[in-house]
Amino acid sequence: MTLAKTPIYFDTDLGIDDSMALAYLLATPEIEIKGIGTVGGNCSAAQAARNTLDLLGIAGRADIPVAVGCHDWLAHPFDGGSPEVHGANGIGDIELPTAAAEPVDEHAVDMLIRLAHEHPGQLRVLAVGPFTNLAAAVQKDPAISELVDRVVVMGGAAMVPGNMTPVAEANVNHDPEAAAVVLAAPWQVTTLGLDVTMDHQFEEADRIALVDSGRPVAGAIAAMMDGYADFYTGVFGRRAVALHDPLAAAAACGHLTYASAPVVDVVVDDTDGPGRGQTIADLRGRFRGFPEQPGAHAQVVLELERPFAPMLLERIVSL
Amino acid sequence: MTLAKTPIYFDTDLGIDDSMALAYLLATPEIEIKGIGTVGGNCSAAQAARNTLDLLGIAGRADIPVAVGCHDWLAHPFDGGSPEVHGANGIGDIELPTAAAEPVDEHAVDMLIRLAHEHPGQLRVLAVGPFTNLAAAVQKDPAISELVDRVVVMGGAAMVPGNMTPVAEANVNHDPEAAAVVLAAPWQVTTLGLDVTMDHQFEEADRIALVDSGRPVAGAIAAMMDGYADFYTGVFGRRAVALHDPLAAAAACGHLTYASAPVVDVVVDDTDGPGRGQTIADLRGRFRGFPEQPGAHAQVVLELERPFAPMLLERIVSL
Repeated sequence: MTLAKTPIYFDTDLGIDDSMALAYLLATPEIEIKGIGTVGGNCSAAQAARNTLDLLGIAGRADIPVAVGCHDWLAHPFDGGSPEVHGANGIGDIELPTAAAEPVDEHAVDMLIRLAHEHPGQLRVLAVGPFTNLAAAVQKDPAISELVDRVVVMGGAAMVPGNMTPVAEANVNHDPEAAAVVLAAPWQVTTLGLDVTMDHQFEEADRIALVDSGRPVAGAIAAMMDGYADFYTGVFGRRAVALHDPLAAAAACGHLTYASAPVVDVVVDDTDGPGRGQTIADLRGRFRGFPEQPGAHAQVVLELERPFAPMLLERIVSL
Repeated sequence: MTLAKTPIYFDTDLGIDDSMALAYLLATPEIEIKGIGTVGGNCSAAQAARNTLDLLGIAGRADIPVAVGCHDWLAHPFDGGSPEVHGANGIGDIELPTAAAEPVDEHAVDMLIRLAHEHPGQLRVLAVGPFTNLAAAVQKDPAISELVDRVVVMGGAAMVPGNMTPVAEANVNHDPEAAAVVLAAPWQVTTLGLDVTMDHQFEEADRIALVDSGRPVAGAIAAMMDGYADFYTGVFGRRAVALHDPLAAAAACGHLTYASAPVVDVVVDDTDGPGRGQTIADLRGRFRGFPEQPGAHAQVVLELERPFAPMLLERIVSL
């Protein structure tokens, strides 16, 4: 007897660490990527779709449908991406072989809604870019908030500084209005924010291990990581890169053991004040083991039990 | 030869931990309290003046002038205090012997301005309540921002949760508009916020040691602490009280050694959004030892080298 694979919808602004996240998913046999939607963030939604298709091509997974999603954010236009972090093309300005596959003729928002209905109670939604598609989907069809199994997102910063402003993490800061909708919808959400993602890094030695593996996906990711490590030298003081999105992927796969991950009230600051883009988690119960907060449905991952980089490296080189 | 004592202006909504702070100052021979101004916070400004005069009476220090300051906050009326924390009278609803002394016939704002001019380059301003008087003073006479030696405040929460909202500490949250003015003025400010003050506590054993000392000020503070420890049981899960204001007093006296206290840009969220009352410190340089931020003039104390409770206990029982 074969156990059913967990169906996953993957939403991404792919993205260098997004590429690592996709590789992690592709290397995980117990999940099945039912569809990938793209969104503007690290690069445009169209570019993210191209990058995703090309990386899937290298992995020999042209069977996975990729849908272009929202180009602009809920309340503001797409800002052109983050070339200083992810390169002008989102993947460190390296050129991947262009895959023959094209995006499907379905909007990412509709893909997510369809998949939620096709897999009632089962679909795991993993979002590693701005939450625009998720917000648009739950606004278009609120029923999906009851249908999906869980939403896992990379985003936020609870008790550590942000990375775009002193308090705002990039995915949330790009579209705070969308993040507010996603955190307010009555589904179960798990957030992997900077509290945990800045504490797990690939070192230069890991990048070299990717190269040395001789594996095609690993090689592509190592090439993307080169400039990314330059950017992160300004953050960490060395060529180490934070493993933001792959951590969320591993969480969506159920592979992480949390040392601290309270379920608490979370709201998003979508004002135009200095706190714009902050995910405000109510962690005031920290001295008493975070007593239950009635109605809270967001699990904020603060700390893992074990190092993540070795798990990630092993999976990427297995492709 | 006698070394000149450091002149201090003490601004307070006295207050239980404020009383500990005042005791700490009174027990420190190398500083001289030139004046005390009161403000609405834990209780009204008038009540805080009464409490201050009565505590000074017990300490035999009726010579220190006490000026009533702002009753209301800059943009909002005083809210009636925090009876659930500090009792209806600000000092845990205990009755102190009423001192004969009355407040001076000078507003706290004018006292602060006068003292700044009388002690150019020397006055240390210690504020442990809402920053209303300080803000009103620097708005009325901007020159004082160049005249005072340093402003030391109890307030804020940088990388830990707030105590009034998930992100806002009480002193800042009571009057965010004032805090914004004080943090924006070009003086040197040191903030002792919840990052450090929640990590230093008096245990029930310390309270009993205050009683056992048989000293009058220690006895009064131990009596005030009784209900305060009840409140904090809901926070810490035991009868331990956070040493907020006395830590700021010790900082103003130059007695603390900081393990981490970066000088960084700090802004205050004075919007009406969910982040209202948050002090937003730019701590993004945390992985690189907090590189200099040009123009930054706020030192945010995050961690001390040594336990504080023994220092505080020793001083209070010495009175």
